Amino acid sequence: MHAQPTTFSAESYFATQPPPPTLQDDVDKVRLFVEKHAREGRSVVLVTSGGTTVPLELNVVRFLDNFSAGTRGATSAEYFLKAGYAVIFMHRQFSLQPFSRHYSHSTNPFLDFLDIDPPENVAVPPRISVTPNKRTDLLQVLTAYKKVHELGALHSLTFVTINDYLWLLRAVSQEMAVLKRKAMFYLAAAVSDFFLPQQKMSEHKIQSGKGNLSIEMDQVPKILKPLVDEWTPGGYIISFKLETDQNLLLPKARQALERYGHQVVIGNDLHRRKFEVVFVSKTRATDASGTAESFAEDWLRIDLHNNAPAGFAEKEIEEDIIAELVKRHSHWIENSV
Amino acid sequence: MHAQPTTFSAESYFATQPPPPTLQDDVDKVRLFVEKHAREGRSVVLVTSGGTTVPLELNVVRFLDNFSAGTRGATSAEYFLKAGYAVIFMHRQFSLQPFSRHYSHSTNPFLDFLDIDPPENVAVPPRISVTPNKRTDLLQVLTAYKKVHELGALHSLTFVTINDYLWLLRAVSQEMAVLKRKAMFYLAAAVSDFFLPQQKMSEHKIQSGKGNLSIEMDQVPKILKPLVDEWTPGGYIISFKLETDQNLLLPKARQALERYGHQVVIGNDLHRRKFEVVFVSKTRATDASGTAESFAEDWLRIDLHNNAPAGFAEKEIEEDIIAELVKRHSHWIENSV
Repeated sequence: MHAQPTTFSAESYFATQPPPPTLQDDVDKVRLFVEKHAREGRSVVLVTSGGTTVPLELNVVRFLDNFSAGTRGATSAEYFLKAGYAVIFMHRQFSLQPFSRHYSHSTNPFLDFLDIDPPENVAVPPRISVTPNKRTDLLQVLTAYKKVHELGALHSLTFVTINDYLWLLRAVSQEMAVLKRKAMFYLAAAVSDFFLPQQKMSEHKIQSGKGNLSIEMDQVPKILKPLVDEWTPGGYIISFKLETDQNLLLPKARQALERYGHQVVIGNDLHRRKFEVVFVSKTRATDASGTAESFAEDWLRIDLHNNAPAGFAEKEIEEDIIAELVKRHSHWIENSV
Repeated sequence: MHAQPTTFSAESYFATQPPPPTLQDDVDKVRLFVEKHAREGRSVVLVTSGGTTVPLELNVVRFLDNFSAGTRGATSAEYFLKAGYAVIFMHRQFSLQPFSRHYSHSTNPFLDFLDIDPPENVAVPPRISVTPNKRTDLLQVLTAYKKVHELGALHSLTFVTINDYLWLLRAVSQEMAVLKRKAMFYLAAAVSDFFLPQQKMSEHKIQSGKGNLSIEMDQVPKILKPLVDEWTPGGYIISFKLETDQNLLLPKARQALERYGHQVVIGNDLHRRKFEVVFVSKTRATDASGTAESFAEDWLRIDLHNNAPAGFAEKEIEEDIIAELVKRHSHWIENSV
């Protein structure tokens, strides 16, 4: 697998890597969703969530993955819905989703809170109902869930590989271009920086017993640049920067803003991301000597003082992140003229 | 990351790689579980399920993974429980689990079949109950689930990395040794063949923008050999062989039996595994000229003719796999004297 590395631009990527087979079908559904909410005057946010995979074989047995349960994305989608946004939730298959995220099969399995009620008569199956001490919490989640579905305010679509993700992101953002400044992009997915071009993949499972494994990967093209410049002009775009070395957080966030020219980078440290993030953006100050650009860094922190089950009594930092973004996005829409 | 490759034996692996922090606690719980069922005369099966990860960094952002939702393991565990076995279900965190597997948040979300009943009086929250057309199916699953929990017949423990898996497998199999021939090992997890020793991992997230990614991995030691010979003598051991190239299936299965000396290899092809597997084992024929060893290959196939939701009307191949293994295991127990 020691082939010559190739440098891919977004253009050469899409010219050489095959689209996922369900792309057209996914795009058709997104178009209908966008049209409906454009008609009804709602802002639409694309939330990307979860990690992308890099398959090592065409018949996939092994793949490289990026650590992400999808908590940030699923939680944020819920708060965007609460704030009145229509949400396109583009997530890694089987990662956490809004609403059901409160009932992980591992930590809060729903089978544990169902009671079998004695049957009213032998001809019908017994009723199954939610055990009393779980009702209050579930009622909140279920009511919000049903309301969102009645409104048709949530549209989900899934990706697995980095290739699925890149093709979908381009197509969905192009569909959202009609929304102009009412489109928001909240790119919380953990996207691989590296990939293995189709042309270099081995067809079958790489055999062990023949020594050690050696993998060479190419760099994923930087697609924020065409997203900002070409695919969806006017959209309000937020990207994320996750680091494990605190010292890299601000320099990397500033570098991304410089390079891609979008609106906000939310920086977070792997171990502090549940209670601390930083919003990095550009500000422009005008005085007699002209206009000077600089970076604004706004830290957002919450107290994690209690241990209530996730999503209920405990405060979630996404509540404050989304409140701040909704404010900034409204300002962005108002200033469009 | 181009360090010198090292060849690890099971012994040198455990001497150089650190145990997971929760190991002792996990082992203590397994010991109690095994003691209880040994006392009650039940056979105990260890079912391993899901894929193991190979982290590329100490502060994990990226990892190599093996494709597996955990369907085989979770389904099999359910049939073992039905057959009266006590089950230690050692699975990848967040992979499918027995019972709840029927209600994936993606394909059959439970929030969709809950109704909010009108409240009886304003002071109490309304009741939530399962919508009538979902009751029959759910009742089956829920009844089996409640019975298993009352009996204490299912013990779950989780792994994420290949290192967690190896340490747990050794410790759990050593705890199960007291069961002698009543212990079964159903090793359905998708275990990585390669890993990155702790000593070679980079501390922080590997930075992109510095060219391509190159990873060199070492081979995971073959631990079936010490499992068979040392950790749990007498146990009935089934391993799995997954291939994407049909032609490799039988040769690789036979090779594993020769090499490790366990009882059964179940071979399956990635694309046919839901309806076809092959049991490969050794048979011994004795005649006047002496004893001759050969391989027995028993194919097991089911019809996939209808499209009922998974786990209900549709036949699952694991039902037949487990029936066959229970028969063979009984035979193995009877022949222990």
